[in-house]
Amino acid sequence: MFSRKQPSLPSKVLVFGAGNFGSCLASHLGDSQHQVYLWAREPFLIQHFNAHHRNSMYLKNHQFPETITAIGPEMPTKEFIDDMDVLLFAIPTQFLRQNLVTLHPLLDVNNMPLLIFVNKGIEVGTQALTLEIIADTCGADVAKAAAFISGPSFAAEIVERLPTSVTVASFTESEAKKASELFHQPHFRCYTNSDPIGIELSGALKNVYAIAAGMSDGLGFKNNTRAMIITRGLAEMTCIGTAYGASPLTFLGLAGVGDLFLTCSSSNSRNYTVGYRLGAGESLDVITKTLGSVAEGVSTTKGVKKYIDELGIQAPIANSVYEVLYEGKDTRLAVRELMELPPSRELELPPTAGGPARQLMRKLGLENREQSWPLSIFK
Amino acid sequence: MFSRKQPSLPSKVLVFGAGNFGSCLASHLGDSQHQVYLWAREPFLIQHFNAHHRNSMYLKNHQFPETITAIGPEMPTKEFIDDMDVLLFAIPTQFLRQNLVTLHPLLDVNNMPLLIFVNKGIEVGTQALTLEIIADTCGADVAKAAAFISGPSFAAEIVERLPTSVTVASFTESEAKKASELFHQPHFRCYTNSDPIGIELSGALKNVYAIAAGMSDGLGFKNNTRAMIITRGLAEMTCIGTAYGASPLTFLGLAGVGDLFLTCSSSNSRNYTVGYRLGAGESLDVITKTLGSVAEGVSTTKGVKKYIDELGIQAPIANSVYEVLYEGKDTRLAVRELMELPPSRELELPPTAGGPARQLMRKLGLENREQSWPLSIFK
Repeated sequence: MFSRKQPSLPSKVLVFGAGNFGSCLASHLGDSQHQVYLWAREPFLIQHFNAHHRNSMYLKNHQFPETITAIGPEMPTKEFIDDMDVLLFAIPTQFLRQNLVTLHPLLDVNNMPLLIFVNKGIEVGTQALTLEIIADTCGADVAKAAAFISGPSFAAEIVERLPTSVTVASFTESEAKKASELFHQPHFRCYTNSDPIGIELSGALKNVYAIAAGMSDGLGFKNNTRAMIITRGLAEMTCIGTAYGASPLTFLGLAGVGDLFLTCSSSNSRNYTVGYRLGAGESLDVITKTLGSVAEGVSTTKGVKKYIDELGIQAPIANSVYEVLYEGKDTRLAVRELMELPPSRELELPPTAGGPARQLMRKLGLENREQSWPLSIFK
Repeated sequence: MFSRKQPSLPSKVLVFGAGNFGSCLASHLGDSQHQVYLWAREPFLIQHFNAHHRNSMYLKNHQFPETITAIGPEMPTKEFIDDMDVLLFAIPTQFLRQNLVTLHPLLDVNNMPLLIFVNKGIEVGTQALTLEIIADTCGADVAKAAAFISGPSFAAEIVERLPTSVTVASFTESEAKKASELFHQPHFRCYTNSDPIGIELSGALKNVYAIAAGMSDGLGFKNNTRAMIITRGLAEMTCIGTAYGASPLTFLGLAGVGDLFLTCSSSNSRNYTVGYRLGAGESLDVITKTLGSVAEGVSTTKGVKKYIDELGIQAPIANSVYEVLYEGKDTRLAVRELMELPPSRELELPPTAGGPARQLMRKLGLENREQSWPLSIFK
């Protein structure tokens, strides 16, 4: 299945969800002269938005383009949906299934809009990725055509037009390309990718390591320790993703190492903050109560722990985060145990004797060490 | 060739170079009860160190263990060298060749100490890696047995015993293991690796991207942009290293992504600072003059540019840094050109249908997408 041909500019885009990221992407598309509808559940937010072009709950200081109209809180009509070129879902993963169940009868499968998903995380209870939620509610064909956007992208920086790059993934290359063309701007680069499973997993997993990085900072550790957690965390994410069936290279991209780096090094991240406060000695109960809303990494850690156990993967950092969150382990003890693991080897392949190394290897009498590995994958 | 059996504790270690990292490692080893000699070129530093156990030029606030004796400025005698179990070289790459030429006649090849190198960078003029400098001056056998230490490790944090992890690499696994055992402590984890070429290249290349990250921050860009530079920089480093003949996985380890992350996100890094000041509008001349000493990335960029051109690699960020440093290109224009490159695909391999993905792929009717790639490398 493919979505219908996109119009030459402007496209009509309906964004579901007026949270931080949904309104930011609505603003970005409105800024590019698309005709954008922002669906929200809060009547006061809708009214205020249409009167003042400001979101009273998120990105409060941002003046939104006048090309955006807020709608809701009812689900739009079939006629309205039919008229849209793009549906963009910025709804938290835990609420996506119920919204897609309501939306599905309104979709015309013979004249589909482009569907883009930007939510991250694993569904609590089912451990389903968004791909699976889409397949369950709208059918496999819709899931195969869905596009996913992920990458290091703080909303507040995007609306300021600061240079940002993201990954746009789909099993259907033409859909990823369409989504990429919709969003691409000189200050917003889109890279396409054909591994939505890996993109979804890295978006979920990174939050677990952001909790670990925050914990380390909260304990008073510094740059060396955080760089170690990010590096070993990346190796764990790649192992888990690979065992799950994603491509390992996805974890080296913007949605992998890029977003991991961003989330682990900023106090703007809710997951980092949960970790920081745990490291500083607060209890999860107190943190959850005062943080207002839940940090996604907390529930993701539970799902990830199941993956790890079922797949039989060594993931000591994710295990430690689980023990701290759900078994009350002391954070300082958790770090000490991690540091006391027996020494090991890093991920490795022997160097090839290709390129300039060949000459050096010959000089060292090591020319027979040559071994082939898939050089082509890095081209 | 193998170095002789290491004694049961303590080892006698001679550290060449009393700079920031040399004195930090001397302190770490002295702290572990080894008998450490710190060779310096400055008579006043030697005298002051032995009187007060403080380094008057580096880590000035640190009280060094009394197990360390400063020596120099003459090269130690053959007898002294013969008595050492370990020689640790913390001399800038540009001065290493002349020191090894002097040292070579003093080495007893039939009763070799363990040789460890911690310098980073490419030799100006020859473009040689340290491995090649060792082979040229001491012979291939000595180079093959040499061990290299690299990873995210600010000296000031190591001497405070803050948790740190590094990679210890050698073509000779037993030598990497010896070096790792010498350094390993609960607060200092060592991972062994058999790709010293990759370890050396990542140590050199990361400084080029630290200049780029600093430039972006100096221009007023923020987290999204820096995460993008780190991610695309890692891809470039991996491409360059792979074409050179290193293992791509080395770039995912502590000496690769770990040190890249550390160097790109701290104003403690000299290379980052050069970039920041360029981004803020200062000229390279003024920066070099006021910075006191040269940031290694500035000369490395020239060597890397030669690699890129000779190997025919796409490395737009390294190219831009070269143009800014050596062709006077405006930093803002350089960033704009980078953002305006045509959209592209990320590094990628198709997902396998291994593990839990198999079920999901079947649900999506994609079970025939299965493709094998070397899963084993991530185990």
